[in-house]
Amino acid sequence: MKGGGLGEFGRIRRFFAPLAGPGGLALRDDAALIPCKAGQQFVVTVDAIVAGVHYLPDDPPDLVARKLLRVNLSDLAAMGARPRHYLLTTALPAAIGDDWVEKFAGGLAEDQRLYGIDLLGGDSVATDGPAVLSLTAIGEVAIGAEIRRSGARPGDQIWVTGTIGDAFLGLAILRGTYPSLPAEQRTALIRRFQLPEPRVELGPRLAGIAHAMLDVSDGLVADLGHICEASQVGGTISLTQLPLLPAARQLASADPDLPGHLATAGDDYELLFTAPLNAADQIRRLSQELGLPITAIGNVEKGAGVRLVNAAGKEVSLAETGYRHF
Amino acid sequence: MKGGGLGEFGRIRRFFAPLAGPGGLALRDDAALIPCKAGQQFVVTVDAIVAGVHYLPDDPPDLVARKLLRVNLSDLAAMGARPRHYLLTTALPAAIGDDWVEKFAGGLAEDQRLYGIDLLGGDSVATDGPAVLSLTAIGEVAIGAEIRRSGARPGDQIWVTGTIGDAFLGLAILRGTYPSLPAEQRTALIRRFQLPEPRVELGPRLAGIAHAMLDVSDGLVADLGHICEASQVGGTISLTQLPLLPAARQLASADPDLPGHLATAGDDYELLFTAPLNAADQIRRLSQELGLPITAIGNVEKGAGVRLVNAAGKEVSLAETGYRHF
Repeated sequence: MKGGGLGEFGRIRRFFAPLAGPGGLALRDDAALIPCKAGQQFVVTVDAIVAGVHYLPDDPPDLVARKLLRVNLSDLAAMGARPRHYLLTTALPAAIGDDWVEKFAGGLAEDQRLYGIDLLGGDSVATDGPAVLSLTAIGEVAIGAEIRRSGARPGDQIWVTGTIGDAFLGLAILRGTYPSLPAEQRTALIRRFQLPEPRVELGPRLAGIAHAMLDVSDGLVADLGHICEASQVGGTISLTQLPLLPAARQLASADPDLPGHLATAGDDYELLFTAPLNAADQIRRLSQELGLPITAIGNVEKGAGVRLVNAAGKEVSLAETGYRHF
Repeated sequence: MKGGGLGEFGRIRRFFAPLAGPGGLALRDDAALIPCKAGQQFVVTVDAIVAGVHYLPDDPPDLVARKLLRVNLSDLAAMGARPRHYLLTTALPAAIGDDWVEKFAGGLAEDQRLYGIDLLGGDSVATDGPAVLSLTAIGEVAIGAEIRRSGARPGDQIWVTGTIGDAFLGLAILRGTYPSLPAEQRTALIRRFQLPEPRVELGPRLAGIAHAMLDVSDGLVADLGHICEASQVGGTISLTQLPLLPAARQLASADPDLPGHLATAGDDYELLFTAPLNAADQIRRLSQELGLPITAIGNVEKGAGVRLVNAAGKEVSLAETGYRHF
């Protein structure tokens, strides 16, 4: 009953129960139900964010909710799964009022409509510390159609969706860097930081095409490293082929080190995958159909580890990019 | 990479990856896989706990882990589901070292063996505030065999497993109350507070027997209230029939108000269910077979709300028990 106003039960009834799907049983039972479908498997992931670490306490609550949801949907897409349901835990300080929670739930409602998902359950507790928000997302994929990190093979091409480094630049702008960029570009980059676009349409369409896939959260280079490690292969990325927004390309023309930084920055929530050479046409057709850029940025090789090369094909040391191995 | 020592990735690899089941993919992919089984449905629940609110920062980490897991397994049992998997989020302050995390994971390992479950995934983040731990549990029940809160019917008997109020007394003892109780009884009551025993065997066995069920977490009276509200019925409990440990019975002989307090105290994690009169023999046989007391404590009636009656059949006002309506 902490937090004043409606209290825990009141908030659940007022703000969260309307988000519940049929399996959520109006959030009034001890647990939720998800019927099995023949030939399918459920795909489950969980991510947590902390106020002051992953978002700023005065960020718009609807955007906080939607980003939390979307980073989880991105994980589902990276397995080739379609999003279906989610569960939510909120640990909130007493200073957070009903108004914040209402806006937070409003953000969830908006993305539920957008992605065709529903709430199955949750828990809300009080904390004396910063807010901690944890979301479990559940998707669905046909048995055998999942795409893991471990399937990359020498000779595969490396592909990435969208553009890379936007979130890094958006955060930099929020912190006061790049004041000379036009307002429109600044807004677009900040948006990319605050509201990633999980590639939920593409992910499941890559079943039978991609050999290995994940979503870029730690940074393109680190995440390609995860694929290489799990697949026991090496990978080379050409920095000049990195898909960048025009704003990023313009900044890079004055700062040749920038593409390397963007390749290691993280929080992109784009899909990074490998596929055999003969899949290239299929991938380009998918790109056109979905209106989503998908760019070939390198190749998988025998060996281990990730190499970056510049326009001349010369290796760029990772140290120069500020990259730290995890 | 916060928290010193092994860091986030190191802790996952060292302490949590060994807990992963086959569907957890060694915690190295973006999400976990759970294949569907024909005729089954998955049952999902989530609960979170906060240091200083739900447990004390210097409580043994293995017991903290096991209680967090068990309160979730109790929710699954209350739906009639068998526990299968779980996911875990930890938001930990930097002061918590690898040693604490190792013991915490050790507690999970112990209960995994006990309950035949495995870890599917998780997330670990850093917080400047108290630790927040959130666990999502996944169980399985045949389609149609789930037991909800809303099925109670007038004429049903009300049953509860185990004993009631032990956790309340255990916490009171930890806070210095009841110093004259024998050490053995004090230890047993504290144990009941620190390590509830979810009724995972009984829950699924009540399919087709119980009309409505939940687990007692808010307090027997409040939770019976939840059943009554969801089922649109009323319920009467006889305080003299409340199942109490000998220690509680002894304390109650000196404090006639105590049974009323115990009936509203909460954190029991016993199963509370209603069943038709003609199921009584089946229930008693289950009780014998499982070596688990199951006690008839009252009846479901037409109407609304929960009534407590004393030995003389006279109603005891809820106000006298310290009960607050949620």
